[in-house]
Amino acid sequence: MPNIKRIILRNWILNSKLFDLVKKRKTTRIFDNRKVNPEDLFYCIKFAMQAPSGANRQPWRFMIIDDPLLRKELRHKCEEQEKMFHENVKAELKEWFRSKEIMWRKPHLTSAPSLLAIFSNQDMIYATESTWLAIGYILMAIEEKSLSTVTYTPPQPEGLRELFSSPENFRLETILPIGYSADPKQKEERQSTETLICRNGWEKN
Amino acid sequence: MPNIKRIILRNWILNSKLFDLVKKRKTTRIFDNRKVNPEDLFYCIKFAMQAPSGANRQPWRFMIIDDPLLRKELRHKCEEQEKMFHENVKAELKEWFRSKEIMWRKPHLTSAPSLLAIFSNQDMIYATESTWLAIGYILMAIEEKSLSTVTYTPPQPEGLRELFSSPENFRLETILPIGYSADPKQKEERQSTETLICRNGWEKN
Repeated sequence: MPNIKRIILRNWILNSKLFDLVKKRKTTRIFDNRKVNPEDLFYCIKFAMQAPSGANRQPWRFMIIDDPLLRKELRHKCEEQEKMFHENVKAELKEWFRSKEIMWRKPHLTSAPSLLAIFSNQDMIYATESTWLAIGYILMAIEEKSLSTVTYTPPQPEGLRELFSSPENFRLETILPIGYSADPKQKEERQSTETLICRNGWEKN
Repeated sequence: MPNIKRIILRNWILNSKLFDLVKKRKTTRIFDNRKVNPEDLFYCIKFAMQAPSGANRQPWRFMIIDDPLLRKELRHKCEEQEKMFHENVKAELKEWFRSKEIMWRKPHLTSAPSLLAIFSNQDMIYATESTWLAIGYILMAIEEKSLSTVTYTPPQPEGLRELFSSPENFRLETILPIGYSADPKQKEERQSTETLICRNGWEKN
């Protein structure tokens, strides 16, 4: 196999539609008023369900949240958690949140056209890992449908169990607000490949 | 929004190339002798690096393992761990492994054309979640390149730290054997959408 750096520096052309899709995709926290077609939402869920999982346990569960009262209460509870989280967050991360204008307020929980909560059954092997792998899948389906989202996870997901009447063995992994983007923010920069790849041991190539 | 079941039963046509890709994709444990083009491997890594991550920390690290001696030792250590794991596994899972002929032996660690280990930096927020989301991405890139893999995770990843000289704060999340499939096994069945979706609360729709 040729030297890693030489391959990277060769700067080969990534002429793939799929790569264009993931390259274009960016996190969105502000949505316009257009509604999400329910069939597109189901498409995204069906897409995620094609993901592999530990011992094929398919530990995921999807909850569509479109009741305005439930959403209002959800936002209230999440923002209470966020206030505490942002007070106690480490300095470096606090600075990053500040620079990105990410606050305790989570307006997307009431304003995004759709909300999709995703849970994992912790009685199953590799439940969290498998579910996040499936979340990777769903992000691509969302992008394919020209929709946008942010993988929002409340600081204390277990504090929402009563609200959702979700069983104790199910962990809330994320709540995806889904809609058409009206977010002017650019995609975050990605690190260089060289710093993230090694070969046959740490710091080697 | 219309009733969930009605939408599902409408059986709409999923005429998407991307859906075809994830539907076709299946886990592979047996590979033929064809080598993996190093540029394809880098493509898959670059693809994964487009994934979002908690506070854009990009906590992932990729290790290409192609040294035959290292691979032999890796397989030996993993199989020692697997023997213990399979002795102590719960009855239900033991039966599933037996039915799928999944044993303590992990020949793909020495026989697959390529091995890619993926680590996460546990000092970073949502490191494991973000890394598995990126693993979801990489699976699609692997499939796009007509390659196959299985998301293999050793039972005690921390037992391999010395072998990889990986720092304590990095957790080994998976080792992907990558190559062209020679695995006759069918894709595992997926559950029905109805059982996995609810609306505005558990067991509701």
